[in-house]
Amino acid sequence: MKKKLMLAGFALALGAGYTLTAFSQVKPEVMVKQRQAVMTLQGKYFGPMAGMAAGKVPYNADTVALNSAFLDALSRMPWDGFAESTKDVTVKTAALPAIWSEPAKFKDAQDNLQKQVQALVAVSRGGDEAAQKAAIAAVGKACGACHQNFREKQN
Amino acid sequence: MKKKLMLAGFALALGAGYTLTAFSQVKPEVMVKQRQAVMTLQGKYFGPMAGMAAGKVPYNADTVALNSAFLDALSRMPWDGFAESTKDVTVKTAALPAIWSEPAKFKDAQDNLQKQVQALVAVSRGGDEAAQKAAIAAVGKACGACHQNFREKQN
Repeated sequence: MKKKLMLAGFALALGAGYTLTAFSQVKPEVMVKQRQAVMTLQGKYFGPMAGMAAGKVPYNADTVALNSAFLDALSRMPWDGFAESTKDVTVKTAALPAIWSEPAKFKDAQDNLQKQVQALVAVSRGGDEAAQKAAIAAVGKACGACHQNFREKQN
Repeated sequence: MKKKLMLAGFALALGAGYTLTAFSQVKPEVMVKQRQAVMTLQGKYFGPMAGMAAGKVPYNADTVALNSAFLDALSRMPWDGFAESTKDVTVKTAALPAIWSEPAKFKDAQDNLQKQVQALVAVSRGGDEAAQKAAIAAVGKACGACHQNFREKQN
């Protein structure tokens, strides 16, 4: 039995003053924890789709639709956590100094991820499995490109 | 200068088989980390709104709209992380045994949070500050009620 749940529109109003007003008093250590939490959840929802695109997990259209919608929200969340104030935190982080020394390049990488996620969201509502798998692969590339330049190599 | 960003619809297709197929092989410790990540992010986005409702943070309609939309996604994410397999993990968790001994009550608490978040999302798009603050307070109550019964007391 399959239960479909269609949700109300996800309309965001993003004010330019938002980052300043809401986060000005958040401790750097908390910001690191929050941005890492987003990465953890992007992994939770991207992982199964990456598995599908690689042919390691059975394709499931509902999972693609749901996980893409979650990534839509998540892919907007990490960036304000990379505030200048977090540059010298003592908590463990894989964030590289290039984040702050090459801000334009880092911003491009963020924008590229969001663009690819939007493209995935767009095809996730149709039933075109091949288009979805291609879009999933493009999201994976965007993740990887950013990690390549701005995250410490993982063991 | 204010930049408005209106996003595409957040349509989720939730398949009944989703939890089983996507998460059956996720390690219990990873599930704990993922559900804690959601709680961290719910705090990130609910915190400023709670401050507004309490009159401690200046009211900002754009922040309410954006944070409510994020909570819309986040409030759906934690629950599959409380799988039976996580009952006896050795990693640190504040989850109480009542989660697994009183599953119907826990489910009610989840549903209540999502219901209150939906109500907040609905009013977050209008400009009624008082209605938004009341809806924010109701979300806070739903958080607290669940924590009261299912989370270890915090110091």
